[in-house]
Amino acid sequence: MIIDCHGHYTTAPKALEDWRNRQIAGIKDPAAMPKVAELRISDDELRESIEKNQLRLMQERGSDLTIFSPRASFMAHHIGDFAVSSTWASICNELCYRVSKLFPKNFVGAAMLPQSPGVDLKSCIPELEKCVKEYGFVAINLNPDPSGGHWNSPPLTDRHWYPIYERMVEYDIPAMIHVSTSCNPAFHTTGAHYINADTTAVMQLIQGDLFRDFPQLRFVIPHGGGAAPYHWGRYRGLAQELKRPVLREHLLNNVFFDTCVYHQPGIDLLTKVIPVANILFASEMIGAVRGIDPETGHNYDDTKRYIDATPNLSAFDRQKVYEGNARRVYARLDKALKRAA
Amino acid sequence: MIIDCHGHYTTAPKALEDWRNRQIAGIKDPAAMPKVAELRISDDELRESIEKNQLRLMQERGSDLTIFSPRASFMAHHIGDFAVSSTWASICNELCYRVSKLFPKNFVGAAMLPQSPGVDLKSCIPELEKCVKEYGFVAINLNPDPSGGHWNSPPLTDRHWYPIYERMVEYDIPAMIHVSTSCNPAFHTTGAHYINADTTAVMQLIQGDLFRDFPQLRFVIPHGGGAAPYHWGRYRGLAQELKRPVLREHLLNNVFFDTCVYHQPGIDLLTKVIPVANILFASEMIGAVRGIDPETGHNYDDTKRYIDATPNLSAFDRQKVYEGNARRVYARLDKALKRAA
Repeated sequence: MIIDCHGHYTTAPKALEDWRNRQIAGIKDPAAMPKVAELRISDDELRESIEKNQLRLMQERGSDLTIFSPRASFMAHHIGDFAVSSTWASICNELCYRVSKLFPKNFVGAAMLPQSPGVDLKSCIPELEKCVKEYGFVAINLNPDPSGGHWNSPPLTDRHWYPIYERMVEYDIPAMIHVSTSCNPAFHTTGAHYINADTTAVMQLIQGDLFRDFPQLRFVIPHGGGAAPYHWGRYRGLAQELKRPVLREHLLNNVFFDTCVYHQPGIDLLTKVIPVANILFASEMIGAVRGIDPETGHNYDDTKRYIDATPNLSAFDRQKVYEGNARRVYARLDKALKRAA
Repeated sequence: MIIDCHGHYTTAPKALEDWRNRQIAGIKDPAAMPKVAELRISDDELRESIEKNQLRLMQERGSDLTIFSPRASFMAHHIGDFAVSSTWASICNELCYRVSKLFPKNFVGAAMLPQSPGVDLKSCIPELEKCVKEYGFVAINLNPDPSGGHWNSPPLTDRHWYPIYERMVEYDIPAMIHVSTSCNPAFHTTGAHYINADTTAVMQLIQGDLFRDFPQLRFVIPHGGGAAPYHWGRYRGLAQELKRPVLREHLLNNVFFDTCVYHQPGIDLLTKVIPVANILFASEMIGAVRGIDPETGHNYDDTKRYIDATPNLSAFDRQKVYEGNARRVYARLDKALKRAA
């Protein structure tokens, strides 16, 4: 079985975006605020949006199961207040849940949280609980910068985030650290903000000592860990300067990197530098980079090709990257798969 | 000849830091503001600070000439107003000039600019002119985020920056895009802010079309280009989505990456992915990562070892990385070396 740990519902029916635009208009003009019930998307529409897109590509490329969360760039936690985020997260998570019910062998949910800048993270617990207990979701996406590019939240090692971590440990679920759209013109969303956030998160975790408080906590750093594996020597050296333990002990019991790196040399570096146990197959398909690489004739985000081709992994290693590691990190998924077997 | 294009005066005599601290105190208490003349550093002190540190390591490791600029993390353009930055830049540049006079075969200057958040960049021209015309400096460092981690300046492709670019073209000098210390607790200075800035700059240049207006402009992206080479497939794919020319045409006539990547796999990736003509030897020594890598027994920032060891470069390629490319990008240095020969 091949598990893709990083897919977003980027192909939801247009009605979702229309409803969201009305919600945003409703922030300034309460009379224009739409009701949740006004969003109607049928199962057939959901089915079509998946069968023609993600599921088709999964079948073509040879992956089986995608850990599926709401579209990351649409989370936009900086828009409106907590009530706006709460309603929006609830709608988006429910759609992922419905997809997971329509295609139970191919999709399992991961929740976006109704984060809102400056709001206590305890406010996110009810949505998180519902997604885990009622929807069978196996993970969350945690946005380290709900401001959308202004970076005014405390580092991930701060107690500010502990209410979420406590629930993650209680439910035995990991978080993917994933920002949303950038409203800062300095940062292109998928070209700068996403990658910077990954790098920033890794360095925050190096500086702090979070996993002493939460030895069970598991984070997935998407997009191949941002810049971290490429600069692994720098990070090992900075940890040394900061009198931290070696990264293998300090980070790698709790931090995992996905394989959303869209060319062969990048995957070769990742699989050379980072221990196999810390690498999880992912493509973020259909996502930021949808085109065909003229240098290979294949889609940039068809990351399975790079993993199959890299000389750094044995067949046994590949099985870990494709399935074994994901079942360890996403413990509730492993349990669900065993129950279904 | 081996040219290191990225060195900062991180070992300046303590009197410099003491003066700076008094200057910072003087922002709130003008009576405490020190005079420039109160900073006294003798040639012997300068000599000692260099001979025991950078020059010793250059000789041990086998490089000849360092392009030498004021300590990047001390630029701190966010502190005080333009007058504060102006005095501070002038002092720091003069010290680098004096080092270059004391060791003319080993050091040549690159200027910090007296940037200040929100201030028109024309204000930086007099210092830039002095450094080029009187001090013989061959480059500048340009801070894309003088706020120190709040990123409220327009992207590098904005006309805001054009006054500097016009002078760079006139004087035929490149800019290294280099931020300073982070005052944002989310960003560790050398572990997140530096690397994020490199990544951000590359993406800004992909989004825009700056080199149509300035075909002669040359930028050096330090720290191995941030995350860009590791994610080169992503950036090629994003350029494609944005309907930009291929990166080789769109960026690589004007953008160069240094080799401040502190482990062998990183240098192997850089030299595999980026054309040799766009790679410039650098170590940022003595800088962020000063320790010895227990995995190799050598200093992390002894980057010459990685370049010597990589299988991706021929002897001819290495000569370009060590000298040829730098003499092309730093055109005034090339002229000065020819005059001195």
